[in-house]
Amino acid sequence: MTTNNGGAPVVVAYSGGLDTSFLVARAARAGQRVVAVTVDTGGFDRAELEAIAARARALGAAEHVLVDARQDVFDRFVTWLIKGNVLKGAVYPLSVAAERYAQAEHIARVARERGARTVVHGSTGAGNDQVRFDVSFRVLAPELTVEAPVRDERLTREQERRWLEEHGLLEHLEARAKAPAKGSYSINAGLWGTTAGGGELHDPFAAPDDDAYPLVTPPWEAAELPEEVDIDFERGVPTSVGGGAGDGVTLVAQLNALGRRHGVGRGIHLGDTVLGLKGRIAFEAPAALILVAAHRELEKLVLTGAQQLVKDQLALTYGDLFHRGLYHDPVMRDIEALFESSQRHVSGTARVRLYRGHVDVLGVTSPATLIDPTLGRYGEEAALWDGRDARGFALLLGVPSTLAARRDRRLEAPAGARVSQ
Amino acid sequence: MTTNNGGAPVVVAYSGGLDTSFLVARAARAGQRVVAVTVDTGGFDRAELEAIAARARALGAAEHVLVDARQDVFDRFVTWLIKGNVLKGAVYPLSVAAERYAQAEHIARVARERGARTVVHGSTGAGNDQVRFDVSFRVLAPELTVEAPVRDERLTREQERRWLEEHGLLEHLEARAKAPAKGSYSINAGLWGTTAGGGELHDPFAAPDDDAYPLVTPPWEAAELPEEVDIDFERGVPTSVGGGAGDGVTLVAQLNALGRRHGVGRGIHLGDTVLGLKGRIAFEAPAALILVAAHRELEKLVLTGAQQLVKDQLALTYGDLFHRGLYHDPVMRDIEALFESSQRHVSGTARVRLYRGHVDVLGVTSPATLIDPTLGRYGEEAALWDGRDARGFALLLGVPSTLAARRDRRLEAPAGARVSQ
Amino acid sequence: MTTNNGGAPVVVAYSGGLDTSFLVARAARAGQRVVAVTVDTGGFDRAELEAIAARARALGAAEHVLVDARQDVFDRFVTWLIKGNVLKGAVYPLSVAAERYAQAEHIARVARERGARTVVHGSTGAGNDQVRFDVSFRVLAPELTVEAPVRDERLTREQERRWLEEHGLLEHLEARAKAPAKGSYSINAGLWGTTAGGGELHDPFAAPDDDAYPLVTPPWEAAELPEEVDIDFERGVPTSVGGGAGDGVTLVAQLNALGRRHGVGRGIHLGDTVLGLKGRIAFEAPAALILVAAHRELEKLVLTGAQQLVKDQLALTYGDLFHRGLYHDPVMRDIEALFESSQRHVSGTARVRLYRGHVDVLGVTSPATLIDPTLGRYGEEAALWDGRDARGFALLLGVPSTLAARRDRRLEAPAGARVSQ
Amino acid sequence: MTTNNGGAPVVVAYSGGLDTSFLVARAARAGQRVVAVTVDTGGFDRAELEAIAARARALGAAEHVLVDARQDVFDRFVTWLIKGNVLKGAVYPLSVAAERYAQAEHIARVARERGARTVVHGSTGAGNDQVRFDVSFRVLAPELTVEAPVRDERLTREQERRWLEEHGLLEHLEARAKAPAKGSYSINAGLWGTTAGGGELHDPFAAPDDDAYPLVTPPWEAAELPEEVDIDFERGVPTSVGGGAGDGVTLVAQLNALGRRHGVGRGIHLGDTVLGLKGRIAFEAPAALILVAAHRELEKLVLTGAQQLVKDQLALTYGDLFHRGLYHDPVMRDIEALFESSQRHVSGTARVRLYRGHVDVLGVTSPATLIDPTLGRYGEEAALWDGRDARGFALLLGVPSTLAARRDRRLEAPAGARVSQ
Repeated sequence: MTTNNGGAPVVVAYSGGLDTSFLVARAARAGQRVVAVTVDTGGFDRAELEAIAARARALGAAEHVLVDARQDVFDRFVTWLIKGNVLKGAVYPLSVAAERYAQAEHIARVARERGARTVVHGSTGAGNDQVRFDVSFRVLAPELTVEAPVRDERLTREQERRWLEEHGLLEHLEARAKAPAKGSYSINAGLWGTTAGGGELHDPFAAPDDDAYPLVTPPWEAAELPEEVDIDFERGVPTSVGGGAGDGVTLVAQLNALGRRHGVGRGIHLGDTVLGLKGRIAFEAPAALILVAAHRELEKLVLTGAQQLVKDQLALTYGDLFHRGLYHDPVMRDIEALFESSQRHVSGTARVRLYRGHVDVLGVTSPATLIDPTLGRYGEEAALWDGRDARGFALLLGVPSTLAARRDRRLEAPAGARVSQ
Repeated sequence: MTTNNGGAPVVVAYSGGLDTSFLVARAARAGQRVVAVTVDTGGFDRAELEAIAARARALGAAEHVLVDARQDVFDRFVTWLIKGNVLKGAVYPLSVAAERYAQAEHIARVARERGARTVVHGSTGAGNDQVRFDVSFRVLAPELTVEAPVRDERLTREQERRWLEEHGLLEHLEARAKAPAKGSYSINAGLWGTTAGGGELHDPFAAPDDDAYPLVTPPWEAAELPEEVDIDFERGVPTSVGGGAGDGVTLVAQLNALGRRHGVGRGIHLGDTVLGLKGRIAFEAPAALILVAAHRELEKLVLTGAQQLVKDQLALTYGDLFHRGLYHDPVMRDIEALFESSQRHVSGTARVRLYRGHVDVLGVTSPATLIDPTLGRYGEEAALWDGRDARGFALLLGVPSTLAARRDRRLEAPAGARVSQ
Repeated sequence: MTTNNGGAPVVVAYSGGLDTSFLVARAARAGQRVVAVTVDTGGFDRAELEAIAARARALGAAEHVLVDARQDVFDRFVTWLIKGNVLKGAVYPLSVAAERYAQAEHIARVARERGARTVVHGSTGAGNDQVRFDVSFRVLAPELTVEAPVRDERLTREQERRWLEEHGLLEHLEARAKAPAKGSYSINAGLWGTTAGGGELHDPFAAPDDDAYPLVTPPWEAAELPEEVDIDFERGVPTSVGGGAGDGVTLVAQLNALGRRHGVGRGIHLGDTVLGLKGRIAFEAPAALILVAAHRELEKLVLTGAQQLVKDQLALTYGDLFHRGLYHDPVMRDIEALFESSQRHVSGTARVRLYRGHVDVLGVTSPATLIDPTLGRYGEEAALWDGRDARGFALLLGVPSTLAARRDRRLEAPAGARVSQ
Repeated sequence: MTTNNGGAPVVVAYSGGLDTSFLVARAARAGQRVVAVTVDTGGFDRAELEAIAARARALGAAEHVLVDARQDVFDRFVTWLIKGNVLKGAVYPLSVAAERYAQAEHIARVARERGARTVVHGSTGAGNDQVRFDVSFRVLAPELTVEAPVRDERLTREQERRWLEEHGLLEHLEARAKAPAKGSYSINAGLWGTTAGGGELHDPFAAPDDDAYPLVTPPWEAAELPEEVDIDFERGVPTSVGGGAGDGVTLVAQLNALGRRHGVGRGIHLGDTVLGLKGRIAFEAPAALILVAAHRELEKLVLTGAQQLVKDQLALTYGDLFHRGLYHDPVMRDIEALFESSQRHVSGTARVRLYRGHVDVLGVTSPATLIDPTLGRYGEEAALWDGRDARGFALLLGVPSTLAARRDRRLEAPAGARVSQ
């Protein structure tokens, strides 16, 4: 448990929920000067944020700091996930990990600014967040002691609730908006996606019910007509949707609204948690799924096949490390350098169509296109070569396979016919 | 041009279209004994196959051989594409390549059985097929001379048509079903997918019209209600759909019918042709898209994270080589050995939902599940470890990142503080 | 600390050193029935093994079990390292990891056979072995409790020595052969290599002295004349050296003797420990370095370029996981399946020359060679193609690069000249 | 054959050998204005270069241009090969490919400056160079016609010699230094290495004789005493040898001289040619082998394990594409960006010892070391964690393997015990 550090404050990563409310209150009661830091990564509306600030103070925090990190989530993390077309298991946009890294950065910054010696987060010992937070804090502010009392003291929610009740503080929690929990699910909302865990999601064969998707309209209740929209990219980063330019947060909000109307963006991900167990979540991420699909198709127009193959393979590694809390390993900067290089021509427009839960990328266009109509079109006579060239190419491309086949045949022949070489 | 090889027949890969009809007729008129071989990989109905056989004979073929290779396409090629979750560019199931390899095998076999010295195919110098055919024939039957006269003599369709007319043979062509060309598109139909090329597909920003999708209902005209179906897999291979077991061809047909009803399986692929140009096709592949999605989710339940990462990266290589005509390189057998090993536990059931063009995998179950409810569930207290273990894990996982961050900070400090080591 | 498990014995992994001697003695004094298991992986001679057995009994072990696992180390682990040409950091043959996995398997087997409930090993909290042992025991015998008291109780060698002295047992330790420690180094000897740690090796710029290499003659004192020897392989596994067939252990011993005479096999490895710190060792592994070099060259004769590229990339992953204690992850079986497939033609002979610390592979020969003199020789006119074919190949191979260069040039041209596509 | 292009000169890539001499002479006799360009990439001494210039003019060249591209070879190509530790097949430094790319760049530049419409090179249809030259010229100067008459007209050396004799020009060839051919070998000398082909090298089991190594002393005749030297690197690039700074060309020359004295740098490479045949060369590359070994060890001190794994895997791809003529594919720029990022801390010193054919890297030191003695040393108690942390780490690292093992055991149990999940 945290003890008084000679006046230096304790910074608590504060989400407003039961765990972190308990941590704020307990530290305050123990005489700590508590700075509660809430980093908004897109999961709260204004009213919620105000309630969270008030609650922190009611629970005894000396200070509540609110950081709007939404643009940071986009600029520092989401852009790489788009550039790499990163979808874990081909489906999940890694939204929670992106948020946690952004939150850790701002919390560490505030802790340093306030001269704190300890940073406290509410992670349990079962999930992924503890790893992302612990590693991030150690990397970003090695002088800080990192505590995760829920995990380290094996606190239960029941214990926390009882303590708060005994100290007359439970009412502050009861007043809080119930938004983050809907039905039987535990919900995490953020800029790049909203996830739901728990409930029947534990059974991998059970489909989650609509409560797991608080925002996206069910496809069968979605808009009746398909809708097309153009998305512009500059060097791999989206810059406008439907012709309207905006910062990343605005564009994501636009696409989320659009996707939700069309039932687009719902998914289920059965993944490997950082600690090795399988975990299953439902998620909603309209903007993420639309942007990755659009970006990937635009790349096909401007990257060579070799570029795509290399970056697709590396993106699997990038996504894996990103998910597993290893964002701060320098290898991630190396992979980002490759991504950045690959994006130098990924500028142009993708046209997508949304309809009843499905996204189609209808077409892409770019000043940097590798299609040059003056040099021939696929399936037609080409200006760059003639049939004789093509015959030579096909012949030589097959030489290794041909030699191997001849060898195999030779080895199957009677032994007398073999010649060692 | 093919000359008489002392009585040995010439085998012509015969699709029934203009190019190969011309090749059959010209070789027959030149006195060759022509064996026309049509390998059905799923693109023809019975009436078409009968018409093709009749046409071959009318054009002068001494023999027409029909091979039903659909089950072969499935068993020898499609199963690997499922096991690898292979979708080129994340979307296209490589259906045409799978067909060509199967066709080449059967044509080579017939050529050997008939004692042929020459095999002729109708590929042009612009497409992918020439490479797949040339390499396959050289590998499978190195004693054969391989000819692709349309490419090698730079024949135009107009020249072919004129020659057939001059020889009074054009009528046989005119009688043929127009199925393979719909509207402005050139269509290739087969077991694992149907592709459309040409027309406005040359413009990467233009969406193809419905003619490019001859079989799948437009999503907005599809069935009004979602439909769920269970797909069983044994060691990575689908074995039943909706409880009804069947061979691969039957299961694919079932899923294609199901998908078409729900508008599922349409796509556009902008890819890199074997010869280096960009090429764009529309495709329909309901069964392929459903099976890969279902299989991939089932894998998530039974493979470790490391298994998934390694096989996903190799599958990109496998798909690339498969597409580029390099199926016969021994490296493909090596990768298949890894795939096969990875599938030893990929047995179980995936439940999918189809609705208006979209496929959702709702859940998966397997006797080989890596989820063991007795050991804890994601997000809850786990039986395998406690919070103290998790803290140690998070601490040590971050050591390399921590050391690198400390190093970076040290290097940014005043030079006097640095210690070389 | 271990308590009496109702008669079930405690199995202690017993190396004969201070740590494990203490553990045996303490458990015996506490009334445990101790089964001390020594798994010989090549690091002991007969006299040492007898002394170890006697010591175990003198310290109170109810039973001492000696397992000769040398052939197992070779068959189950070393063969994969050869097939994959695995040298960590391009130099180190991962000998210690291979030994630990083999030891864990035999210790777990004995524990099960004896009905033990607990297995105890002497690993500290600083090294790699704790991870390899812990993971292996949990995988191989999940019903066992695994204890590593030196780590878990933070025992120091001084504490252990004092306890042994207080119990009148230290003399048994003092009698032991001093072999494993030479000079200032801590030595680990085994079939696939001998490693030295500690001493000046902590300073990455300091060269170890000759004490770090207890077995290999310094190159400048080695035999004056070069020596050539032929090594035969069958499907990737060495089967004879200099014409004399033998099992793996015998061949390794032969090559070690040969290498030592010629000063071959000394190395230094600066690596990443499983726990994230950098670690530096000196090692001697003549047989390993000779066999990997010989095998790699033989592969070049019988594998296609694509096969080599894919397996070399996977071998980096294999070596990394092998080193990091993850040998039991099923992905390793998948990679081994790929290795095994790749080795189906890796049969033949490599001729190596040893001289003063250096190994040269002079030549390789195989019935499965991909060199077919009837088809042309490198640099000369080839039977498989002519210059026109080669020109077409060179032309088409360059198409993607050519298109990209034209695109780059177009984009650098005045904006008016650009055409979006 | 080249015809007069209305006054525009023809540029001939001129090495001074028979093939290119013939091409210069024949074009000049046909009335072409011939600009012979010799790009020195390190294979000529001053006298040879003067002789080559004289010969070009004697054969009819209107102009002879000599370009010293040695520093370019180093700066633009060799530095990437060092940064990537690129040794093809773990042994060969790809020296010839590096030279050809540099030569193509300068020849294309001169051709553009002179207003040429045609560039002629002397490659045959059997080797790698034709691909590297053809692709490079098409990428760098797409407006030029590229001709390789020896290949395209299937010219034999005998035909060329006869033509020169008939035109009274053979004497100019006979005067030329015989350096490039020694004994039965065809030698290519350059900055980054010297290769020998032909002769008994065609037999993969035959060791080349000393003629294949024109420069490096046989190890058994080398200096009697070992020699140590320190090599400094800045961001992955060598900057001084033995304390003496110098440009890349100077440092390479220094290390070549040093290596040759100690018999270091000889090798044999059995590789896959661009056209698919196996090819075997002997090579000498003292500087390359020393620098790659030194650089690789320095990296181990300053890169994390993840960084090394990712860049080692990519370097295999980079080397493969570099070798196969695909240096100009944009993917190479992407990989170079990753390399560059990884090198930001690869500054420091490696100490190497040379003795009788062998290189040992004795130690490395860097201000950017990841070894921090204040945080603990390998094998000893660490400041960053305690035994309890390590135990948790080992436990959790093994969770996926443990779950898989439990699953496997469950599946082997009687069927009634299985529970689907």
